[in-house]
Amino acid sequence: MPDAVDNLRVVLVATRNPLNLGAAARAISNFGFAHLRVVNPYDVAFREARSAVGAAALLAVAEQYQSVAEAVADCTLVVGTTAVRHREVQHPLRRLEYGARLIRQQLAARGGRVALLFGSEKVGLSKQDLNHCHWLMRIPTSEQNISMNLGQAVAVCLYELVRDTKAARASDKPQRATAGDAERITAVLLDALHASGYVNPSGAGATEEKLRRLVRRLNLSASDAEVLLGMLRQIVWKVRQ
Amino acid sequence: MPDAVDNLRVVLVATRNPLNLGAAARAISNFGFAHLRVVNPYDVAFREARSAVGAAALLAVAEQYQSVAEAVADCTLVVGTTAVRHREVQHPLRRLEYGARLIRQQLAARGGRVALLFGSEKVGLSKQDLNHCHWLMRIPTSEQNISMNLGQAVAVCLYELVRDTKAARASDKPQRATAGDAERITAVLLDALHASGYVNPSGAGATEEKLRRLVRRLNLSASDAEVLLGMLRQIVWKVRQ
Repeated sequence: MPDAVDNLRVVLVATRNPLNLGAAARAISNFGFAHLRVVNPYDVAFREARSAVGAAALLAVAEQYQSVAEAVADCTLVVGTTAVRHREVQHPLRRLEYGARLIRQQLAARGGRVALLFGSEKVGLSKQDLNHCHWLMRIPTSEQNISMNLGQAVAVCLYELVRDTKAARASDKPQRATAGDAERITAVLLDALHASGYVNPSGAGATEEKLRRLVRRLNLSASDAEVLLGMLRQIVWKVRQ
Repeated sequence: MPDAVDNLRVVLVATRNPLNLGAAARAISNFGFAHLRVVNPYDVAFREARSAVGAAALLAVAEQYQSVAEAVADCTLVVGTTAVRHREVQHPLRRLEYGARLIRQQLAARGGRVALLFGSEKVGLSKQDLNHCHWLMRIPTSEQNISMNLGQAVAVCLYELVRDTKAARASDKPQRATAGDAERITAVLLDALHASGYVNPSGAGATEEKLRRLVRRLNLSASDAEVLLGMLRQIVWKVRQ
């Protein structure tokens, strides 16, 4: 979704620590987004932020604004982030999992441009900032420690925007060993146990059954079964000498 | 899932920057986990890391190990994180969305204890470290900038572990205004427009129809409709004086 990616504006309001601006820029780059806007950063030297590994170019073209109103003026959806649960009952407050879905829909829409706002490290977004937002979004943090580091919060939100729901269902299991593979391993292992005196002749039948079940429980992949068979054959050869 | 939360061990291997250890501790705390293990950190003063806001207690009891083998010895599943796509074909490499599902299953299992490994900022996990892992996991970053900041990577992985799939489908829309509300607003607004001379008497019917459709398009919530009606009634009262 190249257009959708190009439609997001991450807006950092009154950020104090240039390292956090750098970390935000890095996360924007990591997740394939491209646009950072800053409103009244405390440190005007923010462009030199060192934690922007791989995102210096993005930071260099970050757009600077004097007010939230100007920073979001061209956006069709403005979403504020907050750690607080019930500060602003005037605004709908959505969990990230659901909010991100709405943002993705807007990003994919024709002419949809979304501003995602993050407030300062100390106090978050002010009440005035929040009034520019259509709704608020919160990361589902623990009640015991709700407040996230700014750079980490940006990373988590952008990850949720790009995460692939289908990938969560995808299975990438390697090809399993066949029953024939398992039986060959059982046979060679049994051979090795006989040759090395592990098997008591009177209990050989029980041992074989036990071994057969154990090998099935190993849940071997096809390639691991092949490697294991080669190892066991070599051991049997040595034991039989 | 209190047990499940208690079963995770975040293991940071050869971390260079104490700030990243602090950031990892903070993310662990933010997402309701409790256990941090460190293997050979470069800075032994890591416990003083300042970015561990709200996680100083967790950092103070972080367990320190001399080797990865010792750090994961009591775990039933060991997962390594990597930014690289195809470095270790010997290991299954899973996207975070899918890998996190497998980790959650293991955390919820009886006696299941999972180690989630993160390597050093410069080089990640070594080949030797990876050999202790059952499989590897990668965050779906952009091909143009695959390497994440360590603290941000920890936050994103832990978020995926606690995110609520059902919450993504949840709707929290406020109660909508009824057709009756819309009609009352239409009537009062029309009254105000008549009183203020906006409506040309010859085109009154067309204006009313246009206005009726416009009010429906506003898609008002029940509470906003009530507020708006109060405002308009006050305006009409003033205009009629």
